[in-house]
Amino acid sequence: MATKALALWAVNLKTVPTSTRHAALRSLYNYIGCVIGGSGHPTVKKAYTALAPLFGQPSSSLLGTTSKVDMQNAALLNGIASHVHDYDDTHLATIIHPTGPVASALLAYVEFQGGSLSSDELLVALAAGIEASCKLGLAVWPEHYDIGWHITSTTGAIGAAVGVGKLMHLSEDQMAHAIGIAAVHVIGLREMFGSDTKSFHPGQAAASGIVAALLARQGYTSSEHALEAKRGWANVVAGGGAGPSRLDAILESLGEKWETKSNSFKPFPCGIVCHPAIDAAIQCHSELNQRGVNPSQIERVSMIVHPLVVELTNKKYPRDGLEGKFSVYHGCTVGLLYGRAGPAQYEDEVVISDAVTELRNKVEITADDSIRADEAHLHVKLRNERVERHVVHALGSLEVPMTDEQLTEKFRDQVSNVLGYSAALRASKAAWSMGDAEDILPLLHEFNSASAHGLNWTEALGLISRYSP
Amino acid sequence: MATKALALWAVNLKTVPTSTRHAALRSLYNYIGCVIGGSGHPTVKKAYTALAPLFGQPSSSLLGTTSKVDMQNAALLNGIASHVHDYDDTHLATIIHPTGPVASALLAYVEFQGGSLSSDELLVALAAGIEASCKLGLAVWPEHYDIGWHITSTTGAIGAAVGVGKLMHLSEDQMAHAIGIAAVHVIGLREMFGSDTKSFHPGQAAASGIVAALLARQGYTSSEHALEAKRGWANVVAGGGAGPSRLDAILESLGEKWETKSNSFKPFPCGIVCHPAIDAAIQCHSELNQRGVNPSQIERVSMIVHPLVVELTNKKYPRDGLEGKFSVYHGCTVGLLYGRAGPAQYEDEVVISDAVTELRNKVEITADDSIRADEAHLHVKLRNERVERHVVHALGSLEVPMTDEQLTEKFRDQVSNVLGYSAALRASKAAWSMGDAEDILPLLHEFNSASAHGLNWTEALGLISRYSP
Repeated sequence: MATKALALWAVNLKTVPTSTRHAALRSLYNYIGCVIGGSGHPTVKKAYTALAPLFGQPSSSLLGTTSKVDMQNAALLNGIASHVHDYDDTHLATIIHPTGPVASALLAYVEFQGGSLSSDELLVALAAGIEASCKLGLAVWPEHYDIGWHITSTTGAIGAAVGVGKLMHLSEDQMAHAIGIAAVHVIGLREMFGSDTKSFHPGQAAASGIVAALLARQGYTSSEHALEAKRGWANVVAGGGAGPSRLDAILESLGEKWETKSNSFKPFPCGIVCHPAIDAAIQCHSELNQRGVNPSQIERVSMIVHPLVVELTNKKYPRDGLEGKFSVYHGCTVGLLYGRAGPAQYEDEVVISDAVTELRNKVEITADDSIRADEAHLHVKLRNERVERHVVHALGSLEVPMTDEQLTEKFRDQVSNVLGYSAALRASKAAWSMGDAEDILPLLHEFNSASAHGLNWTEALGLISRYSP
Repeated sequence: MATKALALWAVNLKTVPTSTRHAALRSLYNYIGCVIGGSGHPTVKKAYTALAPLFGQPSSSLLGTTSKVDMQNAALLNGIASHVHDYDDTHLATIIHPTGPVASALLAYVEFQGGSLSSDELLVALAAGIEASCKLGLAVWPEHYDIGWHITSTTGAIGAAVGVGKLMHLSEDQMAHAIGIAAVHVIGLREMFGSDTKSFHPGQAAASGIVAALLARQGYTSSEHALEAKRGWANVVAGGGAGPSRLDAILESLGEKWETKSNSFKPFPCGIVCHPAIDAAIQCHSELNQRGVNPSQIERVSMIVHPLVVELTNKKYPRDGLEGKFSVYHGCTVGLLYGRAGPAQYEDEVVISDAVTELRNKVEITADDSIRADEAHLHVKLRNERVERHVVHALGSLEVPMTDEQLTEKFRDQVSNVLGYSAALRASKAAWSMGDAEDILPLLHEFNSASAHGLNWTEALGLISRYSP
């Protein structure tokens, strides 16, 4: 009865606890920053140009640009942008990035339907979608991911359908069918990691969620046992390993244990395994700063880290920004030199700059089995002194979550790259205001009114006429 | 290297053997009849109404209606219509219904691109798509189907991408990426059989194939090992059972053993297990007819069939058309009475009519393990005589394929229900002409110019404005 149980819970969810509500707002805030930050990425632009012939009536914004497209393609393109820098949120127990699929669908639908919508309604729908995705993820974890599925999108289509279904006020029956229709969209393979298609996954999940909710609202039927049947979603996508009892057990905690509260945010735009060392480096930078010591006096840096750090990010001589993301040496270096490791510190010119290269060559790494994955030791030897840090839990872990202020800084870093600094401040304010607005619709304009680079709808029409008969 | 091998083969396919070409034409012809025949089905109408808010510029026809929508939604809706009566084609070795996803994508794209296109180009693209779908199906059969996937759509998205990619003249590299992008759309669960979502599957596969080809044309990347990688499509969707060697072995036969030639067509719009008995019944009807004997004189009918027939279609007292499809008694009865078992014989009023009910009550069934699935014995006892038939291989099997004439009759039966008889004759002529036209585009008008029931684009716009801001 998992399908019915999830539908029943979602339809009847009217409010969420304050702490969950704030966690949902943080997820939304971080999502908006990531979408705007990713909106100018070549992957997004390629998808935009490729799919322009399909665009319908332009109701829904592409955040970070001045363009609007139909809600399905807005959900798709915003979803791509949300994930393209690998800077989005993470539900650590399943490594799902839950907000991309759900929020992309919600915001696109909100603008499409056009009526006013309160923060309460939006955040409850977002939380419902995130809970649906993450609970289902837990039910099929880890078999599902091990087989090779990109769990963000395979669960995300269902989460998006649940979220949009709530905004549509679907009945329990319609919601069950929406879940079922979304469940047949099993989108995303891990094999695509490293290619444009990786970020296509959450985008398509968002779009599929909208399609599922639209169909279900019209009475389109699926199966009332879509999730739990012998040949239903859970068993099929987990290779036979997730029977109804496991689903039932997980779904029993709906509304009691909130997965939304376990959503975490990346402080640095690189693989999460690097984060403890970078965190330590930034702390050392602060310490040196306080002592009035210039990091140029550093003579040697040594770190002790979990073996996975060496396995995954051992690029000693990165040649561009992308390689920098796979170099714990680089992350540590910019942390020490600049006290930050944001998108700007992963620009190509920074990665190959003399100052960075010189210090990076002095960094040494030791793998140690006794170190946890979110732990690191950093020792910095300078001409006349030394500084060291032991990070027990990295920033961004559940134990040391990013503060709202740190999220704000991350947002501004990302968004100012695209919209400029003053528009970034306005966007940040608007994004936090998504938490206490009677109508969130006017706030959305702040995310696409001041684009520095975005393609606009007129150009899109130009593309359509170029490809059209 | 399966992904590259498939891409290379597809891109370089310039022509197909005559027998394959004719098989592709028969598949296309049968497809067009099924789409028009299904176009008025409530499932299609629900989807049309539900998704109208997403429609883009109306370039591509919904066959059987006067409406055009954007190519993505045309592919989706025509794909739904092609499958909604379960009357489409079957590649028996994989039970894939290959033409729905591929042809729905192709025809929608042909109208979108608007330039002239020869029969040769269309049939080569169709054959390429069918081969891609069926070869991949063979590579993951039967594990993939056993797990619970609807193999028509899971392979269909890739077949559709290959077909459309050929019409787009993608490079080998682009084609490989198109295959990869399509491969992440794993659409369709068997759990949905019996619901509207079953026929959504081939429709969505067609739409996904178009999206994949559009993206790849723009340089959107996936993985060059999308199919064969450890966590690539084949292994993931077969639950780990389909490694690269199996894929390679199957793909080696590309262009040598044509799966398109093994595509079969259903003579009767009901479960294939009933077909041998119905075939026998129709043969007995002819025999009685020749003797000048009225079937009303039948006193008893007994059949001996494969046990699966009893297991799946043992509905002795069907109450409507849908139940009639799960009643071998009914199929056999209309075959004896009317000499046919087309869509008209599965209308509600026929199923509950006195003449049919009376004879149906006289039919007895015996399951026999020694009978093959495509075999049946039928004994008909009349007042003063008897007639019997042993069908060794049912009509529609590979051994006794439907003739072109029989396909034509099937087409007219389906299409005249929707367009009326004279338009059905014109449509049939146009559909066969898809085999020898310098430009197939004008022929497509015959399939949507004379609709008796179809929603049109003006209504769609009305729907959009109703839902839009």
